[in-house]
Amino acid sequence: MSGNLLVAHGGGPTAVINSSLAGIITTARNDPRINKVFGARRGIEGVIAGDLVDLTDFSAQDTEVLARTPGSALGSCRYKVKEEDHAAILKTLEEHGVEVFLYNGGNDSMDTCLKVSRLTDDVGVIGIPKTIDNDLAATDHSPGFGSAARFYAFSAVELALDVAALDIHVSVLEVMGRNAGWLTAATDLAWEIADAGPQMVLVPELDFDEERFLDTVRDHWSRGRGFVIAASEGLTGPDGTALVEEKSGAAVDAFGHALPGNVSMHLAGLIRDRLDIRARSEKPGLIGRVSRANVSEIDRREAIDAGSFAVRAALDGETGKMIALSRVSSPPYRSEPVLVPLEDVANVERALPETYMDADRFRTTPAFAEYALPLLSPPFPQYFQLH
Amino acid sequence: MSGNLLVAHGGGPTAVINSSLAGIITTARNDPRINKVFGARRGIEGVIAGDLVDLTDFSAQDTEVLARTPGSALGSCRYKVKEEDHAAILKTLEEHGVEVFLYNGGNDSMDTCLKVSRLTDDVGVIGIPKTIDNDLAATDHSPGFGSAARFYAFSAVELALDVAALDIHVSVLEVMGRNAGWLTAATDLAWEIADAGPQMVLVPELDFDEERFLDTVRDHWSRGRGFVIAASEGLTGPDGTALVEEKSGAAVDAFGHALPGNVSMHLAGLIRDRLDIRARSEKPGLIGRVSRANVSEIDRREAIDAGSFAVRAALDGETGKMIALSRVSSPPYRSEPVLVPLEDVANVERALPETYMDADRFRTTPAFAEYALPLLSPPFPQYFQLH
Repeated sequence: MSGNLLVAHGGGPTAVINSSLAGIITTARNDPRINKVFGARRGIEGVIAGDLVDLTDFSAQDTEVLARTPGSALGSCRYKVKEEDHAAILKTLEEHGVEVFLYNGGNDSMDTCLKVSRLTDDVGVIGIPKTIDNDLAATDHSPGFGSAARFYAFSAVELALDVAALDIHVSVLEVMGRNAGWLTAATDLAWEIADAGPQMVLVPELDFDEERFLDTVRDHWSRGRGFVIAASEGLTGPDGTALVEEKSGAAVDAFGHALPGNVSMHLAGLIRDRLDIRARSEKPGLIGRVSRANVSEIDRREAIDAGSFAVRAALDGETGKMIALSRVSSPPYRSEPVLVPLEDVANVERALPETYMDADRFRTTPAFAEYALPLLSPPFPQYFQLH
Repeated sequence: MSGNLLVAHGGGPTAVINSSLAGIITTARNDPRINKVFGARRGIEGVIAGDLVDLTDFSAQDTEVLARTPGSALGSCRYKVKEEDHAAILKTLEEHGVEVFLYNGGNDSMDTCLKVSRLTDDVGVIGIPKTIDNDLAATDHSPGFGSAARFYAFSAVELALDVAALDIHVSVLEVMGRNAGWLTAATDLAWEIADAGPQMVLVPELDFDEERFLDTVRDHWSRGRGFVIAASEGLTGPDGTALVEEKSGAAVDAFGHALPGNVSMHLAGLIRDRLDIRARSEKPGLIGRVSRANVSEIDRREAIDAGSFAVRAALDGETGKMIALSRVSSPPYRSEPVLVPLEDVANVERALPETYMDADRFRTTPAFAEYALPLLSPPFPQYFQLH
């Protein structure tokens, strides 16, 4: 085969989705089977509208900068493809001679990718994983997770150092991840990085029990030290509904997912009102998913490689597949990209397994640290405390 | 003179207060006029209680790690010294043969330092500046500010890249700084670092005008792009009262300062309710003041040097002074430590000058960038956008 390549981004950006784009551009540029490299602006919306940018002559130097730029350089969208969009998608693919179509995103985007793959047999359609939430199925982990996990783990260390300096309050750190607790669990890696971290980790997979929560907070506070609680933005009460409902009208995204409210402030309020303990909340929010200073080198490398592998897979005649990361060994940590059917991934959410949480203690298990720690390379700096 | 040295930390920690401690330890270790180096645990409270740690044999390697550890390794406090504490302070100083007393903190801590200096003529009492808020008087800037400014400026860049990728919402970034807008203004340096940043900067020195705010938001939104608003946690309404009152009982700290509420969530709610524009809020909170990955190298260097200079000044017979940073040239940026009377600093808050804000446009002026940008070294990475 020989023809043109089109790539687009779906869903929320990460610190390394541009790294995958850089991998695609570099590999396509060096492969004689690819003539032109196009990017669609704003994901599938740009494909439907025919709003493309030509990346063929992108310089090696610009590609290097791109690989280290957080956010989505092409722009992205949260648009659910409808049947009436099919003709426009096919038109763009045909008019631009596209024989390789790559869609880079999470489980909603893999649904988009699957739909495109079913529209035509003439185009190699491959999905590239991307999610900070780590909730994509059929892969050991997803590009984007390691860097966001590194941000939250370091933030948990540093927040714990800050709170321990004054010992006058509890701090509730709100962590992204609507339905999956992977990133919230990652805050507990703080203890592996330094002798500091959260005393409690609240993941959305475990229903929030207000009384047990307050009892545990009271118990920790009685030891006379300030401490950190890491809480998922998507915590649910015993009846499975969101702990904090978004009050705004715009509370549901295009895929029908409810947008969570400010859980950390709610929990800090509970601690103050019910226990009379000073409590504050920190909610880095979107900053956590695009922090360049906290990018995991392994994550960036795997993101670049996933992009490269996707180009080669499509050129080799594959379609309707997603790149997954297979863990070959650990330790020493080594992964390789493999192909999995898009059907296994589209619209599926992978929760944090029960074996990774010590529910009674509001903590993670050693098995979780074994799984997650290698994804946060390079090695951690040292921290020092005297008091 | 010859004797022992005692150092303590006051107020909130920063990313580089331990760097000053490292400078003190190194300089004291190499000066034959100092016998022993003591640190007080938890600031002046530890001095009053006689709770000291001996740092004399602290290794060079540990000192190096300490210089790169955020938070306060000695622990800190927010305690206002009372007359009945004076005897206990003097007792600790005498019992431990202290001839050099160094207190490292902000304007409240310089009040503590001034009080100690008035208790005795036998001890060289020197204050070392520390504040992320940059609100200490009589100094060009304070250690801690450059690193926190770097955190917020990069966060503003990256948040803007994130928001621009989807263009479906406005994000309100809440910035620390109770009464002074230096850090909030620093988010506007994002535009100097990359072609992205906040569209509006709301500092506490300028009263919040709800209608003018909403008009400006509406105007920016009409250009069809998502954008970032940086807002100080301490914004006040036209009558000078806090925009958002803390509802908790524990809303006032030991120095009588009101603890602000969640301004960013309030503003995001206003935008949603009044303009029907999707809005979210990010509040990194304490994370912004202890982020190791965002430490400014200049800031760390100046923090170390301020500690060293304080030791030498006290040994040279100075007392009742604070180390200030004097800007010798810019560009090229060069500073040197000088001495100023503690009376000029204690309990004084330095606001952001009017000349640094373009109030009509909710933006900073070029003069502010000239002032602040050199403090955020090393040079900035490049960012890349295609859309």
